[in-house]
Amino acid sequence: MKQNRRQFLKTAALTTIGSGLMLDNVLAVERIPSFSVNRTGLGNTLKLRFRPYELQLKHVFTVATNSRTTTPGVQVEIEYDGIIGYGEASMPPYLGENVKSVTSFLQKVKLDRFNDPFQLEDILKYVDEVMPENTAAKALVDIALHDLVGKLLNAPWYKIWGLDKENTPSTTYTIGIDTAEMVRKKTFEVAGEFNILKVKLGGDNDTEMIKSIRAVSDLPIAVDANQGWTDKQYALDMIHWLKEQGVVMVEQPMPKKQLDDIAWITQQSPLPIFADESIQRLKDVIAVSQAFSGINIKLMKCTGMREAWKMITLARALNMKVMIGCMVESSCAVSAAAQLSPGLDFADLDGNLLISNDLFKGMKVINGKITLNDLPGIGVTKK
Amino acid sequence: MKQNRRQFLKTAALTTIGSGLMLDNVLAVERIPSFSVNRTGLGNTLKLRFRPYELQLKHVFTVATNSRTTTPGVQVEIEYDGIIGYGEASMPPYLGENVKSVTSFLQKVKLDRFNDPFQLEDILKYVDEVMPENTAAKALVDIALHDLVGKLLNAPWYKIWGLDKENTPSTTYTIGIDTAEMVRKKTFEVAGEFNILKVKLGGDNDTEMIKSIRAVSDLPIAVDANQGWTDKQYALDMIHWLKEQGVVMVEQPMPKKQLDDIAWITQQSPLPIFADESIQRLKDVIAVSQAFSGINIKLMKCTGMREAWKMITLARALNMKVMIGCMVESSCAVSAAAQLSPGLDFADLDGNLLISNDLFKGMKVINGKITLNDLPGIGVTKK
Repeated sequence: MKQNRRQFLKTAALTTIGSGLMLDNVLAVERIPSFSVNRTGLGNTLKLRFRPYELQLKHVFTVATNSRTTTPGVQVEIEYDGIIGYGEASMPPYLGENVKSVTSFLQKVKLDRFNDPFQLEDILKYVDEVMPENTAAKALVDIALHDLVGKLLNAPWYKIWGLDKENTPSTTYTIGIDTAEMVRKKTFEVAGEFNILKVKLGGDNDTEMIKSIRAVSDLPIAVDANQGWTDKQYALDMIHWLKEQGVVMVEQPMPKKQLDDIAWITQQSPLPIFADESIQRLKDVIAVSQAFSGINIKLMKCTGMREAWKMITLARALNMKVMIGCMVESSCAVSAAAQLSPGLDFADLDGNLLISNDLFKGMKVINGKITLNDLPGIGVTKK
Repeated sequence: MKQNRRQFLKTAALTTIGSGLMLDNVLAVERIPSFSVNRTGLGNTLKLRFRPYELQLKHVFTVATNSRTTTPGVQVEIEYDGIIGYGEASMPPYLGENVKSVTSFLQKVKLDRFNDPFQLEDILKYVDEVMPENTAAKALVDIALHDLVGKLLNAPWYKIWGLDKENTPSTTYTIGIDTAEMVRKKTFEVAGEFNILKVKLGGDNDTEMIKSIRAVSDLPIAVDANQGWTDKQYALDMIHWLKEQGVVMVEQPMPKKQLDDIAWITQQSPLPIFADESIQRLKDVIAVSQAFSGINIKLMKCTGMREAWKMITLARALNMKVMIGCMVESSCAVSAAAQLSPGLDFADLDGNLLISNDLFKGMKVINGKITLNDLPGIGVTKK
């Protein structure tokens, strides 16, 4: 890191230290709002500033491997000609990225070599080649650039992409695994606000979960099996039973390494089968098209909006269904994902509803439906 | 056709009659500049006006089946909120469309049901479903809508698509089949202006053509075999010889029905093999990816810029090369195609250079390279 570069703001440094991470050369200086990776040259160049921002969960979040009350994140601003684009990375611990890896990645990204933010193809190709992997760090840059370019065009991205915002899907809302009584209670609480629920199955109490929900609601249900079923006949039988229960789609019924078994299931399944763990980026779409009916696209896994848009184009050309999902994210990244949603088959964009310290206002869920505003870029304003 | 609709302008009617076609209900009225398919409603709706416009060739144009000095075309304007988008269809006689078919198609297109030109996905899906085929008529609507939307965004499409206009390829320039002396003469005349030449082979004098060019120029050569070779071993031997002569790519070496033979050639070819007659639209890309190294995209065959952009995305995801071509067209449609060209492997956009009555100024060929301007939309102005 060069000496003459602006350094972290005090609060960011504290956040960083507070999360147990001490970066090299982090200096606590006077209240500079953020850290400038790229110094301003003469004329307009792209300036990238970022800071760690820990997302606070409203409720304890439990996945197969752990429980947590926060999700590490990084917030970014890319400035050009006085206009600021916002971006965000969210790094759930099981996906391998963290504040240190994202920070380290961003310090290698030299955006000041570009003087035209419209050149997204070249800029994002460069960003992708800085280091392999680091998909959330790449998504953060992509989202901020899209927000910036949309603002320069004075148009939201759904419009730039030629989509009709009336065609947004309803978002699923996830009912966490819990006791039967708690599942009934939670379902009852949210059933009036959403049009489709989501449950994570693949454990021992799959039928109990569904029956608990059905005791209080007849909303359609999306199922994410999270690779949890290991026998293909069992999985197919379960899918048939789920269809009878009003389930409308199933994500990732079996482990990604059992691609042939998944293909066997998809061929006979009465419900569409979506790839989740089996798919990450554009390069994976053709391979999974042999085994799944659809794909679940997540910005933090696919490097952002531009690649996501290409994945949608490719999947549609392959006659596949498409859904868009998210991590625990603020309204920044969720609104970016929502721009892609018009015309998609399903959306699982409830990440911002799970946190208590959202810095942004953006897309809203109204009567269960993803509702886009007319703001340019990714459609967010700071709260 | 409804009685209360505005009717053809006198000149259009004359053009129409002059080309041997008498449309139903064509009235020679006072000088109304064009024919309004969609009446203005209250508020902003899309208004489409069109007229036949015959493209005059500077020189007699000879393809395998015929010679001609004109190409029928249709010019269109789509107006919204006082902004006009320009579009064009070109209908070379061997492709099945003509002024009557395009006119008939456009009379069925009711754009006034849309009040937002940004909804390109839905509008163009509707246009595509009005009737099958009619790809040039569909391209005309697509191009005009893109010009309109680009103007509303105040940005050229290469920019909206995130491309860098410095990355445009050189265009090929076609040396027509002729006597050895004339080929040498023509090549000598244009060699200083272009960086790559194109020849149509597949006849009896293939080697003579190449040798005649090589007698006066060492520019790289693109070859379009136009399905002309019928024996795969002969084709492969010819391709090896062509490579030794400085040929850099070959289009459509064999008839499209001989796809297996083409795949055999591509696998062993030292040059990239591009699909031309084998490909028309997005739905064809995956099939041809099994047999070719690349695709040639033409707006008049693929229904326009939006589908072309999807084809590029798909082809790149399949690791294919991509070129963009054109028919005999004015600077209107050629400039639309040029917006897609940054980053492509080859371009064959010399259609506007072949006509003497171009109504537009747009993309230019400077030192052989496609040179885009900064005008919004497709980047054209009326002369």
